[in-house]
Amino acid sequence: MRKNAFYAQSGGVTSVINATAAALILESKKHKSKIKKVYAGKNGILGALKEELIDTSKESFSAINSLKSRPGGIFGSCRFKLKSFEENKKEYLRLVEVFKAHDIGYFFYNGGNDSADTAFKVSQISKKLGYPINCIAIPKTVDNDLAVTDSCPGFGSAAKYIATSVFEASLDVASMSETSTKVFILEVMGRHAGWMAASSALARSKKNNAPHIILFPEISFNQTNFLKKVKEVVKNKGYCVIVASEGVKNSKGKFLSESNTRDAFGHSQLGGVAPYLAGLVSQKLNLKNHWAVSDYLQRSARHISSTTDLNHAEAVGIHAVKYAINGMNSVMPVIVRNKNKKYSWKIEPAQLSKIANVEKKLPYSFISKNGFDVTSSAIKYLKPLIQGEAFPKFKNGIPYTQKLKLVEVKKKLPTWKG
Amino acid sequence: MRKNAFYAQSGGVTSVINATAAALILESKKHKSKIKKVYAGKNGILGALKEELIDTSKESFSAINSLKSRPGGIFGSCRFKLKSFEENKKEYLRLVEVFKAHDIGYFFYNGGNDSADTAFKVSQISKKLGYPINCIAIPKTVDNDLAVTDSCPGFGSAAKYIATSVFEASLDVASMSETSTKVFILEVMGRHAGWMAASSALARSKKNNAPHIILFPEISFNQTNFLKKVKEVVKNKGYCVIVASEGVKNSKGKFLSESNTRDAFGHSQLGGVAPYLAGLVSQKLNLKNHWAVSDYLQRSARHISSTTDLNHAEAVGIHAVKYAINGMNSVMPVIVRNKNKKYSWKIEPAQLSKIANVEKKLPYSFISKNGFDVTSSAIKYLKPLIQGEAFPKFKNGIPYTQKLKLVEVKKKLPTWKG
Repeated sequence: MRKNAFYAQSGGVTSVINATAAALILESKKHKSKIKKVYAGKNGILGALKEELIDTSKESFSAINSLKSRPGGIFGSCRFKLKSFEENKKEYLRLVEVFKAHDIGYFFYNGGNDSADTAFKVSQISKKLGYPINCIAIPKTVDNDLAVTDSCPGFGSAAKYIATSVFEASLDVASMSETSTKVFILEVMGRHAGWMAASSALARSKKNNAPHIILFPEISFNQTNFLKKVKEVVKNKGYCVIVASEGVKNSKGKFLSESNTRDAFGHSQLGGVAPYLAGLVSQKLNLKNHWAVSDYLQRSARHISSTTDLNHAEAVGIHAVKYAINGMNSVMPVIVRNKNKKYSWKIEPAQLSKIANVEKKLPYSFISKNGFDVTSSAIKYLKPLIQGEAFPKFKNGIPYTQKLKLVEVKKKLPTWKG
Repeated sequence: MRKNAFYAQSGGVTSVINATAAALILESKKHKSKIKKVYAGKNGILGALKEELIDTSKESFSAINSLKSRPGGIFGSCRFKLKSFEENKKEYLRLVEVFKAHDIGYFFYNGGNDSADTAFKVSQISKKLGYPINCIAIPKTVDNDLAVTDSCPGFGSAAKYIATSVFEASLDVASMSETSTKVFILEVMGRHAGWMAASSALARSKKNNAPHIILFPEISFNQTNFLKKVKEVVKNKGYCVIVASEGVKNSKGKFLSESNTRDAFGHSQLGGVAPYLAGLVSQKLNLKNHWAVSDYLQRSARHISSTTDLNHAEAVGIHAVKYAINGMNSVMPVIVRNKNKKYSWKIEPAQLSKIANVEKKLPYSFISKNGFDVTSSAIKYLKPLIQGEAFPKFKNGIPYTQKLKLVEVKKKLPTWKG
């Protein structure tokens, strides 16, 4: 059975998701007896629904290969969750219609836990509608919150960005602290899980170095303890570096970023955790401070991606193809850490039913007793993921990217009305 | 005349200020007939006043050389401006006392325009108090706002960080824009001058690429025009990337960052320009947006420093020594751009009187007519400054820094009471 493949990117993108795409497309070319062409969905699953399919066979090897150093999602991503088969049968019928029209027998969906859910639902088309498909979800998320897999492609690079940035900014604050800035706050991503915040601990080349306080979404914020700790650190060290997860909540379970600021019109404003904490430090402790919010910078920083992460990203792309052509359905290639002392890993298939919609939070064994730091187990887990510098090529002082043609396949069906 | 030298870092630090320090210390070793030892002031000029002098001769060559890839200010910086001789004679008398006690005949002060002022005042000690000193200010500032010099060491690297970050984040936003984020705002430093904001234009590998809107402190903010432009860009491109200088002001000359947010207690909060603009975009245009504030990250990002900038930083350190041992006083080694088509440069001495306290803003010829972009003259000026990648060594996934001894010279004088 020779079929075309559909590949799409979904949810928040990462600095290495295109490396997965490149590896998948190049691996597919090695299996011409099974896979004809790889069609990439424009903007995720929407590309399938709208019949907007990019023909990757029109691209040169060099163009596809260059994706390994291009951040963002080259084919466009989406935040769009398929309803259940019962709730919106129309969408599934449309997918089958598009798959049939373009002879698609392989479905690859590259995303997080919402996307694993979409892939899981699509995988059931075989059963529900009798359409044969090999459906593979491929892991990707800077949040590192997917179940089963040891880590998620995208996370290691974001972690390396955070560790490096905290390391560098801490040297800056240290030099300014005598007469100026005493407190520096960096807000990192992680709405529900503190993996990214935890990775800032890798900035330490020595125990007790910065960061001095890490705030996790898993630990509810206690203002008194926080301020006491800041005061203490500034007294002992001369300055204090804080890394706060965007998802830090107060004891009532409300995001700190929503609990405080009002704009000129009196509207509540999603002000960010960093400016909130900075306000507290100013008002309650009268300490000069600076704050930064890295937002998209941390997840798109391909210039500081980790080689380990990049290798993971490519490997899951390659294995997705292998699983699909071997007839697997409803699985995800996950990263398995070998039990040796030295970090090594392999890829294995895992059932999507165990991954879809499950959120893996930072285990409590990774958080220190006072709630402001990580444990040595966390460091042991995190450290291998940021190893190696996969610097991209630069041209004219900025990272170099090659232009792709992104030719769309001719439509065969009526327009999708949604 | 063989004398010791005093070197100190002042004002906001940069990712390459330690490269200047390293070059200066290593160059000094080549002139042993003139310079005995280099004493570094702990926390800038305060180190001289407090007699806290770090003996750099105790460090190995390798330790000093490693400073070339260490961000922040290794000896500590300060925000401290000497009063005039007439206002606070005591401070000048103390400096002379410390210089005499430690046989200091060369004074090197590495900073911005405030620091040039301090150096200028110290240079007059010879005249006013009859103490012979060769006083050299050395340029450093990410703000790029020093007069006379073509550019300021530290700026090129910050500019490269900004251009790279905007390039990367724009690819991220582009992939998300169909179903999610339409507007991304990055706030960069620059309280009074728009050099850093302008450098974001280097993110474009093609005209009309992101960033689509740049806001400068030199141009007063017009809300109506801004929102109109955002709407137009989103309509045409599908998304809009905005880079805003922290110093953007409204038509009344008030910082936008101060004009809007109130915390829970009703206090006005320095909320940052980015969240302010994000609030506007949400409320007035109802467009989903993300924002980032790079703050200290941009000026300490040694991992993405420009080779050109690093070369400048070293060259001004070397020339400072040459000028001092040739008997010059009250000058600064400045970068002069040669008038060839291909970028090249040299170092020349300039009078401190022309530099102290002068602020070089972005020339109007560098700002586009609509006030939202730079001109081709700006690009021509900026581009050479971000060329080359001076990646540091990494260890354990983060930049490697070597430990210095930082041994203080034994005090000979009574404690300074200020």
